[in-house]
Amino acid sequence: MRVFKELKKFDEWSAEDRDLYTVNVIKGLILDGVRKANSGHTGGPLSSADMTYILFSEFLKYYPDDPDWIARDRFVLSAGHESMLLYSLLFLQGFLTIDDLMSFRKLNSRTPGHPEVEVTGADATTGPLGQGMGMAVGMAVAEIKLRAVMDQHKPGSGVLFQHFTYVLAGDGDLQEPISLGAAALAGHWKLNKLITLYDSNKAQISGMTDRADSTDLALVFEGLGWHVQAIDGHDHDEIRDAIQTAKVIDRPSIIIGSTVMAKGSATMEGDFNTHGTPLPQDEINLTKENLGLPADKFFAPQVIIDYFNRRSQDLMTEYGQWNNRLKENQRSKKFRKIWAMIIDDDLPTLTYPDFEAGTTLATRKAFGKVLDSFAEQLPHLIGGSADLEPSNYTGGFAQTFGDFTRDNPNGRNLAFGVREFPMAAILNGLSLHGGLIPFGGTFLVFADYERPALRLAALQKLRVIHEFTHDSFFVGEDGPTHQPVEHIMSLRIIPNFTVFRPADALETAVCFKLAIKNRDIPSALLLSRQGLPVMEKSYSEIEKGVKKGAYTIKVCDEPAEILLIATGSEVALAVEVADLIKDRRVRVVSMPSWELFDSQRADYRARLIPPRGCLKVSIEAGVTIGWERYVGPTGLSIGLDTFGVSAPAEDLARKFGFTAENIVKKINNYLETLL
Amino acid sequence: MRVFKELKKFDEWSAEDRDLYTVNVIKGLILDGVRKANSGHTGGPLSSADMTYILFSEFLKYYPDDPDWIARDRFVLSAGHESMLLYSLLFLQGFLTIDDLMSFRKLNSRTPGHPEVEVTGADATTGPLGQGMGMAVGMAVAEIKLRAVMDQHKPGSGVLFQHFTYVLAGDGDLQEPISLGAAALAGHWKLNKLITLYDSNKAQISGMTDRADSTDLALVFEGLGWHVQAIDGHDHDEIRDAIQTAKVIDRPSIIIGSTVMAKGSATMEGDFNTHGTPLPQDEINLTKENLGLPADKFFAPQVIIDYFNRRSQDLMTEYGQWNNRLKENQRSKKFRKIWAMIIDDDLPTLTYPDFEAGTTLATRKAFGKVLDSFAEQLPHLIGGSADLEPSNYTGGFAQTFGDFTRDNPNGRNLAFGVREFPMAAILNGLSLHGGLIPFGGTFLVFADYERPALRLAALQKLRVIHEFTHDSFFVGEDGPTHQPVEHIMSLRIIPNFTVFRPADALETAVCFKLAIKNRDIPSALLLSRQGLPVMEKSYSEIEKGVKKGAYTIKVCDEPAEILLIATGSEVALAVEVADLIKDRRVRVVSMPSWELFDSQRADYRARLIPPRGCLKVSIEAGVTIGWERYVGPTGLSIGLDTFGVSAPAEDLARKFGFTAENIVKKINNYLETLL
Repeated sequence: MRVFKELKKFDEWSAEDRDLYTVNVIKGLILDGVRKANSGHTGGPLSSADMTYILFSEFLKYYPDDPDWIARDRFVLSAGHESMLLYSLLFLQGFLTIDDLMSFRKLNSRTPGHPEVEVTGADATTGPLGQGMGMAVGMAVAEIKLRAVMDQHKPGSGVLFQHFTYVLAGDGDLQEPISLGAAALAGHWKLNKLITLYDSNKAQISGMTDRADSTDLALVFEGLGWHVQAIDGHDHDEIRDAIQTAKVIDRPSIIIGSTVMAKGSATMEGDFNTHGTPLPQDEINLTKENLGLPADKFFAPQVIIDYFNRRSQDLMTEYGQWNNRLKENQRSKKFRKIWAMIIDDDLPTLTYPDFEAGTTLATRKAFGKVLDSFAEQLPHLIGGSADLEPSNYTGGFAQTFGDFTRDNPNGRNLAFGVREFPMAAILNGLSLHGGLIPFGGTFLVFADYERPALRLAALQKLRVIHEFTHDSFFVGEDGPTHQPVEHIMSLRIIPNFTVFRPADALETAVCFKLAIKNRDIPSALLLSRQGLPVMEKSYSEIEKGVKKGAYTIKVCDEPAEILLIATGSEVALAVEVADLIKDRRVRVVSMPSWELFDSQRADYRARLIPPRGCLKVSIEAGVTIGWERYVGPTGLSIGLDTFGVSAPAEDLARKFGFTAENIVKKINNYLETLL
Repeated sequence: MRVFKELKKFDEWSAEDRDLYTVNVIKGLILDGVRKANSGHTGGPLSSADMTYILFSEFLKYYPDDPDWIARDRFVLSAGHESMLLYSLLFLQGFLTIDDLMSFRKLNSRTPGHPEVEVTGADATTGPLGQGMGMAVGMAVAEIKLRAVMDQHKPGSGVLFQHFTYVLAGDGDLQEPISLGAAALAGHWKLNKLITLYDSNKAQISGMTDRADSTDLALVFEGLGWHVQAIDGHDHDEIRDAIQTAKVIDRPSIIIGSTVMAKGSATMEGDFNTHGTPLPQDEINLTKENLGLPADKFFAPQVIIDYFNRRSQDLMTEYGQWNNRLKENQRSKKFRKIWAMIIDDDLPTLTYPDFEAGTTLATRKAFGKVLDSFAEQLPHLIGGSADLEPSNYTGGFAQTFGDFTRDNPNGRNLAFGVREFPMAAILNGLSLHGGLIPFGGTFLVFADYERPALRLAALQKLRVIHEFTHDSFFVGEDGPTHQPVEHIMSLRIIPNFTVFRPADALETAVCFKLAIKNRDIPSALLLSRQGLPVMEKSYSEIEKGVKKGAYTIKVCDEPAEILLIATGSEVALAVEVADLIKDRRVRVVSMPSWELFDSQRADYRARLIPPRGCLKVSIEAGVTIGWERYVGPTGLSIGLDTFGVSAPAEDLARKFGFTAENIVKKINNYLETLL
């Protein structure tokens, strides 16, 4: 137990003591915050406190009055449960108040249980382990990308983008496989400004990590192409030196800090039971005594706040210089325009590519053509495929713009390899960073692999565009493992997530544009493997309809007797069905997006899909659960509620009843039962 | 180009030539099969052919007349797209016919696009990359477990379980992070009989792997605790030696075979474009010429089949000896009984633990108690938690039975660490192997991490029991990242997957038992964090109701005016609501399982939930999409269609309207609008 001198003579203390004591003050805040909330995590925040304190007080570039400064360093608390540590640091930085700390985990507080990107100074929503590592990789890519993009257009001297992305990861974080997948890409791309502080306290919820782990992570990360340092995670000099070294190394860096769970607690050091609970009040009292802290709750004297902020003048200068550089460049009109587009998201009016009406084109191929066109118009549209480039039709984009790596920062194609989940998390990081419009492609059936990151995109309100091709059993021969069935619906039920299933090339282009304009919402474009007829309609007609989520694609004399509601590849089929039913009035609705349709005014919805008076039939090559919403209890849902089968698509269409003849028969039979 | 002698003098050839030529015959089958299907994968099968041929013809233990022999070696084609290679080998083994090969990827064939476990001789359904590695880890655990379990009861001498699990993995397979997560557990558990043949052909769909990868996998796997050998994957002697070495090493083994994409093709060696298509017929013709094959399609002379099967006498002997050992042991009645229970799944009548009516107990805690009880009754019930042991209440089980590793094979708890997806894939492998009833626990919100493996369990019709606790926003302070909203419904829409959301401790016990009896269906138990009242009902009443998926939990004078349909933690709330509505006849239905309810006879369903004549209200703390199925267009769904918020659960209940008073108000308001 170290004995500190009187606090009022803090200025006379050794630098070492001042640092140690500031860490102790942070620990006091953690102990009190979690105790007051009567919920939260203690052990990890205490073991990570030394590393993060050195990082925040000596290295991190930020400006308290401009938390969203685009050129700031990023910090991702991948071990999101250590939120009280982050909040204590944000308090010392000036982003949060002591009242915020006192209302940790309370309703309407600014200090929720896990960090949320809405919290001032927090760079990402974290908690679901491993994803912070993935998002940080995306942020580190963004930094290189923006430097490359803006450098092309920058008339002045001096760099505008030159910042680091730091991650704090815990044992559990690095057990999550996505961490390793994302790290493999970081190594491949040589993201030299990505630095992970790994708090290796060897304790987790269920016990010591050796119950579940014998991994030599140093070896693993070397294999992934990272620079590895192993240090004592409580030794401030070692931490300092390691970060210094990591900053100049030419590849991503992990600093493995060997630490002690609940470091500094009076009697509970090393105890994994401190992971997910407040410490007992007695233990807190004793701990504070040991740490040289008064018994006062939320003790945060001004002298400590000031000491923590001893770099504030330097940070202000750096911020000012950066703004001067920006202003200098902004004298150029061309630069102002590109800055406005990229950084302020002031997008140009996008023009669409042409498609020939009446021809047949898979919507995935249409997507490729639209991508090629939009990419020319939007220099900050970047992304790629999880090794399905020829299938996702992102090959043209890749060829035109080249693969990104640090050595080719102008490359705009991200060759993810077979790593869907890392891809989705990285896209989230690109979007979080700001200045980029990210997209990623794979087969729809593998949306499952990405699902945790799709959710985190939705929760964080991130514009991320997911291209999911091969969107039904029409995939054919590849069989049930590659034929999505439940996926269309499973994506629709994610809150704040827009699913588009366009019916043809034109709808594909419009949906893609709407996805780009969906600034606060991730989108998925569900696209066909098979060819679909290009509709004989103008873009303005299509745009008007798609914006409403659903619209009439084939009219009839009203009132309609039968209303066919179809999505994607089944729209053309529905039109065929309507053509075959000659003795009744049949209207066909294309419904590319439930979410957009549900947000329309009630009168439009009721006009398009009358609550009663006609037989409503949904046609979609996926599960039918949910379609009752539109077809009602007396309606009919044509879908597929079992897994698919390996066979040519046309054989499957017959087997699963997705032929016009069969659907007509089903409708007629059904009408008879209603008589 | 090697020149072979006349085939009719095959017996006089050198062993080396015979092997080389047999591989060439396999390659011919691959080329013809994919060409005839006009769809499928060629490049990978050709590069893997040497390694798998040596494995199958010299090492793999199997018996053609008993493809399900429990003591056989397992082979998992993790690179499932190399199906035509597997089918060619299965043909040579005698499991498939040449006609099967000719109908590759056709409707109703026995040779679907990716291997399916229903195919005779195939040990797993694969194709979604990485999961084969995970399933193989499960199989290798199963081998050790069964030896341990049966050894305890075996009166005779000689081992019954002593077999290997082999995996063929490709580049893309090992890019999938789950491979690394599963491998970390294999290393930790020291699964010495797990051997991965890694076909490192450095080509994938989108190009050469160096577009997306710089990983040193040898270093990574060493870090994961594996034995690593790097060989020429086309050199039969090196392959042979490597497998020999791997078999005697005391940890899992990976053999990195450096290979050439499309090895043996006339002009396309190394070309990544051969990955996912048939080769052109001209190329096939030329290739066959080079390989010394006649132009005949599906050339498979008997002499080659015989040569491939030169071990058949030995295999028959081994199979016979094994059966003798089994018979010897089966003289013991006790052994016969345990064998019947474990291997033939002849389960005892399970007895339930007692719960005190009227007390309050979270269903996750009830699960823990039921687990403790069932585990005593079922020696082959094994599993664990993805590092949420104290939250999932699997700690009693872990304490009683201990953590499994190869050094503690009697351990029945699998400490997975924070690795949900590897866990789910490993559980699939345990179930695939046979002889074990696997379960795994995590938070419901992290079901997303496992989703690809949940689907593969459903597709393979595997009994796997998933415990998902913290099943709604009632999680409270941990906030939206930890509060499931869309998950209940997203699991329901997976085909062949049963979701149970029990209302109390008794329903939990019954659901768990039904999950165990669900031999062909994976199940999920969705359990509350918060306490719920134990119903004043007998187990037999509950069992009768739960088996039907939904049943009346609170009666009223019929016909009911209001029908409340609730699941899980909202059932008690619904009863409260019913008690508060004094002026109307209100009946309450508990609906623990949609799937079971939907499979009931129409008359029961109509009696329980009348199609018309009453207001139907669903109450479930999750998204409402889908509930229209039961409440109809004029019904009311109380749910949560947005993400949650961090705050104490009771505050959230008020915020989100999950209080009896609020629901009563909503119902009254709604009734007024209907007037």
